[in-house]
Amino acid sequence: RLNELLEPMHAADIADIIERLDASGRRDFLALYSGEIDGEILSEIDESIREEVLEQLPPEVLAEAVREMDSDDVVDLVEDLDEPERAEILAALDDSDRAAVQQSLTYPEYSAGRLMQSEVVTAPEHWTVGDMIDFLRAEEWLPEQFYHVILVDPRRHPVGYVQLGRMLASRRDVTLNELSEESFRTISAYADEGDVAYAFNQYHLISAPVVDKDDRLVGVITIDDAMSVLDEEHEEDILRLAGVGEESAITDTVIETLRQRLPWLMVNLVTAIVASLVIAVFETTIQQIVALAVLMPIVASMGGNAGTQTLTVAVRALATKSLTGGNVWRVVKREAAVGVLNGLAFAVVMGVVAWIWFDGMSLAAVIGIAMIINLAIAALAGILIPLTLEKLGADPALASGTFVTTVTDVVGFFAFLGLASAVLL
Amino acid sequence: RLNELLEPMHAADIADIIERLDASGRRDFLALYSGEIDGEILSEIDESIREEVLEQLPPEVLAEAVREMDSDDVVDLVEDLDEPERAEILAALDDSDRAAVQQSLTYPEYSAGRLMQSEVVTAPEHWTVGDMIDFLRAEEWLPEQFYHVILVDPRRHPVGYVQLGRMLASRRDVTLNELSEESFRTISAYADEGDVAYAFNQYHLISAPVVDKDDRLVGVITIDDAMSVLDEEHEEDILRLAGVGEESAITDTVIETLRQRLPWLMVNLVTAIVASLVIAVFETTIQQIVALAVLMPIVASMGGNAGTQTLTVAVRALATKSLTGGNVWRVVKREAAVGVLNGLAFAVVMGVVAWIWFDGMSLAAVIGIAMIINLAIAALAGILIPLTLEKLGADPALASGTFVTTVTDVVGFFAFLGLASAVLL
Ligand SMILES: [Mg+2]
Ligand SMILES: [Mg+2]
Ligand SMILES: [Mg+2]
Ligand SMILES: [Mg+2]
Ligand SMILES: [Mg+2]
Ligand SMILES: [Mg+2]
Ligand SMILES: [Mg+2]
Ligand SMILES: [Mg+2]
Ligand SMILES: [Mg+2]
Ligand SMILES: [Mg+2]
Ligand SMILES: [Mg+2]
Ligand SMILES: [Mg+2]
Ligand SMILES: [Mg+2]
Repeated sequence: RLNELLEPMHAADIADIIERLDASGRRDFLALYSGEIDGEILSEIDESIREEVLEQLPPEVLAEAVREMDSDDVVDLVEDLDEPERAEILAALDDSDRAAVQQSLTYPEYSAGRLMQSEVVTAPEHWTVGDMIDFLRAEEWLPEQFYHVILVDPRRHPVGYVQLGRMLASRRDVTLNELSEESFRTISAYADEGDVAYAFNQYHLISAPVVDKDDRLVGVITIDDAMSVLDEEHEEDILRLAGVGEESAITDTVIETLRQRLPWLMVNLVTAIVASLVIAVFETTIQQIVALAVLMPIVASMGGNAGTQTLTVAVRALATKSLTGGNVWRVVKREAAVGVLNGLAFAVVMGVVAWIWFDGMSLAAVIGIAMIINLAIAALAGILIPLTLEKLGADPALASGTFVTTVTDVVGFFAFLGLASAVLL
Repeated sequence: RLNELLEPMHAADIADIIERLDASGRRDFLALYSGEIDGEILSEIDESIREEVLEQLPPEVLAEAVREMDSDDVVDLVEDLDEPERAEILAALDDSDRAAVQQSLTYPEYSAGRLMQSEVVTAPEHWTVGDMIDFLRAEEWLPEQFYHVILVDPRRHPVGYVQLGRMLASRRDVTLNELSEESFRTISAYADEGDVAYAFNQYHLISAPVVDKDDRLVGVITIDDAMSVLDEEHEEDILRLAGVGEESAITDTVIETLRQRLPWLMVNLVTAIVASLVIAVFETTIQQIVALAVLMPIVASMGGNAGTQTLTVAVRALATKSLTGGNVWRVVKREAAVGVLNGLAFAVVMGVVAWIWFDGMSLAAVIGIAMIINLAIAALAGILIPLTLEKLGADPALASGTFVTTVTDVVGFFAFLGLASAVLL
């Protein structure tokens, strides 16, 4: 019954069903279905539960599944496993497939070398369309999907790149060289996967040859895998900005979730206490004018929001490489101007509100000036903090939200309460 | 000199250079270079400055550029233009190209129909590989890139889908039907572009046929365009969560930026005032125990951060369709449990801090209990608010950050100050 139901479904959807079950549901499901788990389903299952699933598969099912997979998917499967489990899976492979996987694993994590598949269709540059067609018709083994043929010289340096469509549309005697694409990009096996995804998106690549240090062809990256990386990089940014561990998954247990989130909340607690220390400095002022306690969170909150706006725009601009030396000064100036103008606008609005509410003109002036100061600082912090993190080689998305709101809390409380002490007492 | 410098560059990189200039730099650049702007560059230029660039192009350059472009890129170019400018561009096209663009424009904005190109290679289902090769060799006009041939019946319903690689590897007498992919997905022209991008990513599609209401083939969507949409959808979510207009671009002027950000800051001001009204209720309590004013932002800030963590995870899970009827109850329970456990942990930590700082055991108990309450409510708000927005058909990313922090501010101040009034006075 289960088999009939799942038979027409795509591997990716079956993997999603497995992910949505809870741990015990997953055990029951696999008890019934593990015989049908193939390489496609296995490579779609999220990393967060993959080990759990692997442990429950009969060894012969696992071996068969792994033999079906492209080398990039095997690499993705084994790279996070411990040595004994990794060895068991590699043992299921042919010698040549195993060698390919092991070569990939020599490149750093998150590099193009880990992302590439070794299954690639190449041809000598002097071949004609006819040679290629005859070769492909005779060849027993071909990748399941391929869209280009990579032309290589005798030392396996890629020298050209031919679309299958152009090949099909040309007579047999045309040489492949004549059909090669004008713009032809190779990717270093050491390139960061995020930069690879950027290049695919920027240059509309469908697949790209990967080369080693000596410029020799070692594999090919296909756009479906680059698209997944792009998706993951975004996910990472958005989770990091929110102070959630970037490993967060919907299948995580309560304990795993706590372990990811507690550290960031701890950081936030420390920064919140720092802001409170600023308030404590002005305790006697607050005691005399309680309205200050009522209004002070408004100044801090507006600063936090305005800072987060700028920060988010800056983090995204850095991620898409659209904030560079050429325009960074202009964007900093823009953000500062926006900060000051926002400050002026909300100084007026909040000044009027405070005046009406507490019937005090000086109080209105104090909150207005504090607002201008805090929104201007918020804008500067929002752009300078991620720029500095990037310069230092850190991820500008990481924890910068906490830095920015710490700055805006401290400045907000200090400007408002400090001015109030000076002016109102 | 400029031409020589830019000659070897990819259109996408030239477009980026144009985007990084300021408005007057752009004018100077275009004065020198506008003759070289081709269709590829034009379709890479960001929407935020496209109209500005179009206005500065000589009409014959624009006409030539548009004639080179695929129909999807022309649609993208003209869909945001006013009638006179749109008509001018459409006038440059051949009759058949213009008809294709106009058909695309009949589909709703952000639909598959707007994303598809009409340039597509089809074949009758009964053709053989030989027929197809002869057809392609004889055909004068072919799309610049294509990776599949779509098999259609006499009424132009897509019935199959053949990879060019499989075609090249087969003998001339094999029928295309035999080579058709097993799993073959068509996309409705009315489908939302976000769902299209999801399908490409989920099913590793490279291109997909688009059909109208009668299931007739009207175009094809290619993965490079789906990848851009995926990128934009992420961008939209991250910008919306931060309360930045989703149209935000690095080229925006100060005024444009202000116009996007002011409304969200205004919303935040209103909610911050609401939270202040809660504080105002307890003015006399604060006057008697100023320590409350010092500590109250900590409770609110922890709630805001914890709520944002949960919110971000929920918004992403909804966007990736991994939070569905099947697991929603389990995830809500998980978040609630995490909220309570976080609350307990920080109740202890903050209780100790408050005890040492202000030497008051009751104050420590009050802040501890307020912390538990606020972090539990934060978790529930963080998941229930986006779920509710989704149920109502609204974007769960839109403004939900403001709702969540309003809840945590109000609950945080109310729980802490209310308990303090009851226990400490
Ligand atoms: Mg999945
Ligand atoms: Mg794969
Ligand atoms: Mg991996
Ligand atoms: Mg792959
Ligand atoms: Mg990464
Ligand atoms: Mg990143
Ligand atoms: Mg660009
Ligand atoms: Mg395009
Ligand atoms: Mg558009
Ligand atoms: Mg394509
Ligand atoms: Mg296109
Ligand atoms: Mg959209
Ligand atoms: Mg969305």
